[in-house]
Amino acid sequence: MTESTAPVSLRRKPAPGRLAVTGIGNAMLDVISRDSEGVYESLGLVKASMTLIEHHQLETFYNAMGPTVQMSGGSVANSIAGVAALGGTCGYIGKVANDEFGERFTHDLRSMGVELDLAIAGDHEGLTGRCHVFITDDAQRTMATYLGASNQLQSADITDRLIRRSEITYVEGYLFDLAPAKEAVRKVTTLAHEHDSMVALSLSDMFCVDRHRRDFLELVTSDVDVLLGNEDEITSLFQVRSLGAAFDAITELGLLAAVTRGPRGADVVLPDEVVSVPAREVETVVDQNGAGDMFAAGFLYGLALGADPVEAAELGSLCAGEIIKHLGARPEVDLEEMAIEAGLI
Amino acid sequence: MTESTAPVSLRRKPAPGRLAVTGIGNAMLDVISRDSEGVYESLGLVKASMTLIEHHQLETFYNAMGPTVQMSGGSVANSIAGVAALGGTCGYIGKVANDEFGERFTHDLRSMGVELDLAIAGDHEGLTGRCHVFITDDAQRTMATYLGASNQLQSADITDRLIRRSEITYVEGYLFDLAPAKEAVRKVTTLAHEHDSMVALSLSDMFCVDRHRRDFLELVTSDVDVLLGNEDEITSLFQVRSLGAAFDAITELGLLAAVTRGPRGADVVLPDEVVSVPAREVETVVDQNGAGDMFAAGFLYGLALGADPVEAAELGSLCAGEIIKHLGARPEVDLEEMAIEAGLI
Repeated sequence: MTESTAPVSLRRKPAPGRLAVTGIGNAMLDVISRDSEGVYESLGLVKASMTLIEHHQLETFYNAMGPTVQMSGGSVANSIAGVAALGGTCGYIGKVANDEFGERFTHDLRSMGVELDLAIAGDHEGLTGRCHVFITDDAQRTMATYLGASNQLQSADITDRLIRRSEITYVEGYLFDLAPAKEAVRKVTTLAHEHDSMVALSLSDMFCVDRHRRDFLELVTSDVDVLLGNEDEITSLFQVRSLGAAFDAITELGLLAAVTRGPRGADVVLPDEVVSVPAREVETVVDQNGAGDMFAAGFLYGLALGADPVEAAELGSLCAGEIIKHLGARPEVDLEEMAIEAGLI
Repeated sequence: MTESTAPVSLRRKPAPGRLAVTGIGNAMLDVISRDSEGVYESLGLVKASMTLIEHHQLETFYNAMGPTVQMSGGSVANSIAGVAALGGTCGYIGKVANDEFGERFTHDLRSMGVELDLAIAGDHEGLTGRCHVFITDDAQRTMATYLGASNQLQSADITDRLIRRSEITYVEGYLFDLAPAKEAVRKVTTLAHEHDSMVALSLSDMFCVDRHRRDFLELVTSDVDVLLGNEDEITSLFQVRSLGAAFDAITELGLLAAVTRGPRGADVVLPDEVVSVPAREVETVVDQNGAGDMFAAGFLYGLALGADPVEAAELGSLCAGEIIKHLGARPEVDLEEMAIEAGLI
């Protein structure tokens, strides 16, 4: 393993009309509460992971929370907001309901200049998705997600309008949690291949990987160019005990991968070596929510600009370092300015 | 002017059943957007100040904003949330509508253990109040406030349930912006005097002081024990050019006052001297929104605990230093733990 010290200089913005990254994922509002020691256990949640909840549980979960901060979320949507904050052109495909949460989600991406293909759910397809995020003093986030409308995304909702113009198409693993979305994912990858858009996949969550290992393996074997996940997700995917064995499996499949490792930074798996990119030092980590999403934003935007993967991971690391300083998974500072100051774009 | 270096050791928690502070103010949700250079001017707002807007302007203002973070706000409500985060018992009196924003406001204070006397507005009294907060890179906040239901508070909505048990009753100057609330304020101060609750007044905003100078002067002359405001508000109140002249006017009225001065800290006006308490050093100031409110939280809670005013101002300064590190005016960390670590409670 090599320690990266490479100075980064990225190359070219996408041509006019082109998009750096288009994401497809579960459109969500985040309802965030800190100081949640004792709360998430009482609700039967598994710490630092994501549990799915049903419509009838919404009131119980909200009532159990402390004061909340609310903002748009959704893993891949966060990454797309990150690309926009880096100054990149980008798109997002998802599904919301015709309600206040859906309006806020739409407003937030649109106001950043993201091109949207948002399907609107019918009356019986549930409310706009929301994720209850329980932050504890160790900055871990435990999540209870109501998918609602977001997971009613069907292949009929997918067009090539954004994908055909995108350098990278970024797919959220969470989408596999309902059957219709799987079909939609297949349509997305087919369209991406037709239009020479690189396909990137986020593994999303280790339990999600567990639920859909076979689908994920099929996808990474035949359709994915770039794989993103953390240590737990990657080792779970290949059912191996060591990260080294997972790296071997990735190399064998001919994939490019970035494996996030929290405070230890990220490992970039290249055809003939694994390069470790350190995490940025952060004085006080408030909330690790969104660290993986922001890493993905920087990494994918770097790749879309034509940077080599290690350079791209440096940009990912910078973005991840910003997001963990505050509550919430959407950037609070001008990432583009920060990246320029750091000499990364 | 003396520089305070006093180590602080506060004394006693209020007796069981007693409340340290009860606040009365405009119940508001904050809708916050950063990176608002160019936006607030286009909407005709005055930088770093608060402008009132009407119901029919809500859509225009929201559409002009970038991505938003939403959380409960309201100046005095923020202070009460701060007292609760410091471990203090407290109460809040205000008015919301029967809508989602009202539910969120209620949830957020209740979940912190604040005792609530929230009147519910009738169908024609407007939506729950909301404040559009435009943050710029210099960490200033410019506000456009829709008062809605919050300012329909009437004396009929006020009972002595909370006030009679409170060491301090804290009144928001903004309440004066509609006529019925003035009556309510009179009822609050009358009840406070009856029950030996100290009356504290927040001057809220220099333009608010300008709009209601005569009412404010009447109130501070006859009913107020503790005055809180920043430099602009205090000098505007007494229509003097220098802070020194304002201090003289305060002393003459026999008031205790704390005047916040941003990065220069706060001045505590005592009967025979003015003591300056420095601001806490903060690495990156993200958002000054709530700095005054959190200063008030620490200052009033300190007074309620029986600390001397300079000690109380140290606690105020600590709380203000936390809030400006992140977006929003509600605390993100455990203020009580922070204050204990700093040896302040």
